[in-house]
Amino acid sequence: MQRYKCTITYDGSQFSGYQIQPGMRTIQGEIEAALSKLHKGERIKISASGRTDAGVHAKGQVIHFDSALAIPTAKWEIALNSVLPDDIAVIRVEKAAPNFHARFDAVGKEYRYFVYLSPKRDPFKRHYAYQFPYPLDYVAMKEALKYLIGTHDFTSFCSAKTEIEDKVRTIEEIEFFEEGDLLVFRFVGNGFLYNMVRILTGTLLEVGSGNRSPYSIPDILEKKDRQYAGKTAPAHGLYLWKVFY
Amino acid sequence: MQRYKCTITYDGSQFSGYQIQPGMRTIQGEIEAALSKLHKGERIKISASGRTDAGVHAKGQVIHFDSALAIPTAKWEIALNSVLPDDIAVIRVEKAAPNFHARFDAVGKEYRYFVYLSPKRDPFKRHYAYQFPYPLDYVAMKEALKYLIGTHDFTSFCSAKTEIEDKVRTIEEIEFFEEGDLLVFRFVGNGFLYNMVRILTGTLLEVGSGNRSPYSIPDILEKKDRQYAGKTAPAHGLYLWKVFY
Repeated sequence: MQRYKCTITYDGSQFSGYQIQPGMRTIQGEIEAALSKLHKGERIKISASGRTDAGVHAKGQVIHFDSALAIPTAKWEIALNSVLPDDIAVIRVEKAAPNFHARFDAVGKEYRYFVYLSPKRDPFKRHYAYQFPYPLDYVAMKEALKYLIGTHDFTSFCSAKTEIEDKVRTIEEIEFFEEGDLLVFRFVGNGFLYNMVRILTGTLLEVGSGNRSPYSIPDILEKKDRQYAGKTAPAHGLYLWKVFY
Repeated sequence: MQRYKCTITYDGSQFSGYQIQPGMRTIQGEIEAALSKLHKGERIKISASGRTDAGVHAKGQVIHFDSALAIPTAKWEIALNSVLPDDIAVIRVEKAAPNFHARFDAVGKEYRYFVYLSPKRDPFKRHYAYQFPYPLDYVAMKEALKYLIGTHDFTSFCSAKTEIEDKVRTIEEIEFFEEGDLLVFRFVGNGFLYNMVRILTGTLLEVGSGNRSPYSIPDILEKKDRQYAGKTAPAHGLYLWKVFY
């Protein structure tokens, strides 16, 4: 038996999220079905660095699985891609130690959030960036970042649905830059709570459009209450970009 | 009654092409349904600069239609977009002369064809660029262009299914350039025959990959027979970019 660490990318637009659910098309479901095909019907369970919601994309999600198949490491990528649907692709397969765990060994993650700044409707962006065609005050947004970067209790920036107790996380970097008619937010941290990147993005857009002061951020953090932060930005602008080990 | 010239963009991946067909989802069908909604159920016929096949995209397709609705020109774009599905968008509406015709008045068109050069499978490009991960000899391809640009009988570069008699067309420009991991072909001409851009692209890729000499192009043109040219490149890499009037 060999454990494999496998980096995957997917277009989340046609999936009901990562986690397997009966009767739904999910990332986990499709990958486990693909592995099962390679293993003559045997069920192979995979574990990911974390779940992604319906509509959320991944450029560098990481999963692990165990296999007894005698496929050379270099051929795993080709073998898996040949049985995966075309909206999921394996981009790297590596041998891993028997105790490697995609979720528990992750020490950080990078997410990106894409905002489409133009008022022109663009069918090619409908699943891939959130259209927000309002003037943005980048100076105010940069001011807000100062209060978000660092170690904080992010209860206010986390879906109230979460069961996790400890909501202290460290955000190492948040930056944003324009790429043509897109505004790209980049978040790097040791871990992100449920909906955290989308709530951070929604709040930063409210700061940028003048509906919220950058100086309100410390208050929001202090309240430890979801209702004080901004709206949750839509799923389709979000990309799990990279997982660090 | 007012005639309108309307520039539209669409992601062709979820359509059975432009032309209306019973029981199929088509660009023409969706736009006519949208116009019908605005006109209280009245059927409004549209005419386009030309058809596009299933999977082919448009960044600047042009249509015309007549309407007696008292919508100011500046509001037509908003009105139409509010009733169109999100994979078609209106990007410009202008008043036109009563005898303006989107097809017969077009004096030229620009198409672009996107080739994805990397061997890595990319789910985000599956509907939007043709993956061709083989080395390309750009010098040979540029040599081939010399024989294609200009006025020629393009029978060999046209689907044998065509009924049009006169297959003489003028290509004013063909060029190609890299954009990241994409190779973009740009074709400008006074008119293009059925499948012509896709057959030109397929042939140029065969020249680039060494399977065909650039010096064979004059022979291919001379034969006036579809079987002498290269393969038809797939629909999903093709974009109707602009129509000239």
